Amino acid sequence: MQHRGVTVWLTGLSGAGKTTICQALEQELQTLGCKLEVLDGDVVRENLSKGLTFSQEDRDINVRRIGFVAHLLSRNGVIVLVSAISPYRAVRDEVRQQIGDFLEVHVSTPLSVCEQRDVKGLYQRARSGEIKGFTGIDDPYEAPLAPEVTCPTHEDTVAESVQKIIQALVAAGYLELAIA
Amino acid sequence: MQHRGVTVWLTGLSGAGKTTICQALEQELQTLGCKLEVLDGDVVRENLSKGLTFSQEDRDINVRRIGFVAHLLSRNGVIVLVSAISPYRAVRDEVRQQIGDFLEVHVSTPLSVCEQRDVKGLYQRARSGEIKGFTGIDDPYEAPLAPEVTCPTHEDTVAESVQKIIQALVAAGYLELAIA
Repeated sequence: MQHRGVTVWLTGLSGAGKTTICQALEQELQTLGCKLEVLDGDVVRENLSKGLTFSQEDRDINVRRIGFVAHLLSRNGVIVLVSAISPYRAVRDEVRQQIGDFLEVHVSTPLSVCEQRDVKGLYQRARSGEIKGFTGIDDPYEAPLAPEVTCPTHEDTVAESVQKIIQALVAAGYLELAIA
Repeated sequence: MQHRGVTVWLTGLSGAGKTTICQALEQELQTLGCKLEVLDGDVVRENLSKGLTFSQEDRDINVRRIGFVAHLLSRNGVIVLVSAISPYRAVRDEVRQQIGDFLEVHVSTPLSVCEQRDVKGLYQRARSGEIKGFTGIDDPYEAPLAPEVTCPTHEDTVAESVQKIIQALVAAGYLELAIA
């Protein structure tokens, strides 16, 4: 199995299933022997962006920092899996331009489904007004206009989503699967 | 030529010659065909740490962020050249522990020489009180106790410094030079 460096950027609402897909994809790519790193939005906030708020300006700075690191890694041959709400289209496109080798995955689970799941209880806290500026509630989510992959997790299984992304990586020439 | 991932961390006063050595080392390693990235203190501040001050707390955060990125890169086989004043010993040692594959280079040019050079005019501004908390003037520089390499640029040429670092990389098993 051979691969080139690329950034796979999962964007979507809180609770859409980004982390779940990301972890399953990580496992699959590890099995294939890929050199890979995961940049999870929360982990990156802890390590690179402590002190930033959830204002548009600070969210954009956070996304740019993830992009900066993803760029350094993917241009050195690493497959970088980014999992971050990254709600604003303009800065996602900016990062795409910067990195070049970039695959955008829209985890497109509708708000109603995310809110019903409410795994972390955040939607309830956002609805009650306890959390302000929550993406999808009182802050916008700008869906990608032309993502390479779309994963509606209310329709597709995790395994199906992972296969879609793997196939997109192969189709774009980033991943070459050995014929077993 | 073969190499393993490692972080080469250049620490020293402003004006000590870190960037000059770093650039010459970069050129030499590129000629050898190494996979490499340079993380310059100023560039990193722009991309990862905008808004941070020069207080000890913020300097430490900045150094930790450089360390976080250097770790991601070097564990993926990249030689990472870091050039940053990084004045505090404790956080440098913390980053060394975290990264593991780490070579500390003390660019040990004395304060008097750095101040005489004053390439950016910063020492004069620090002495006049215009800049506060300037390393070496009214903020401490804690020299490494056991750096792998020491480069006194008032005694050694740039080429000599570069060769010292290359030799240390070879000695530690990070770099294997083909016999010409």
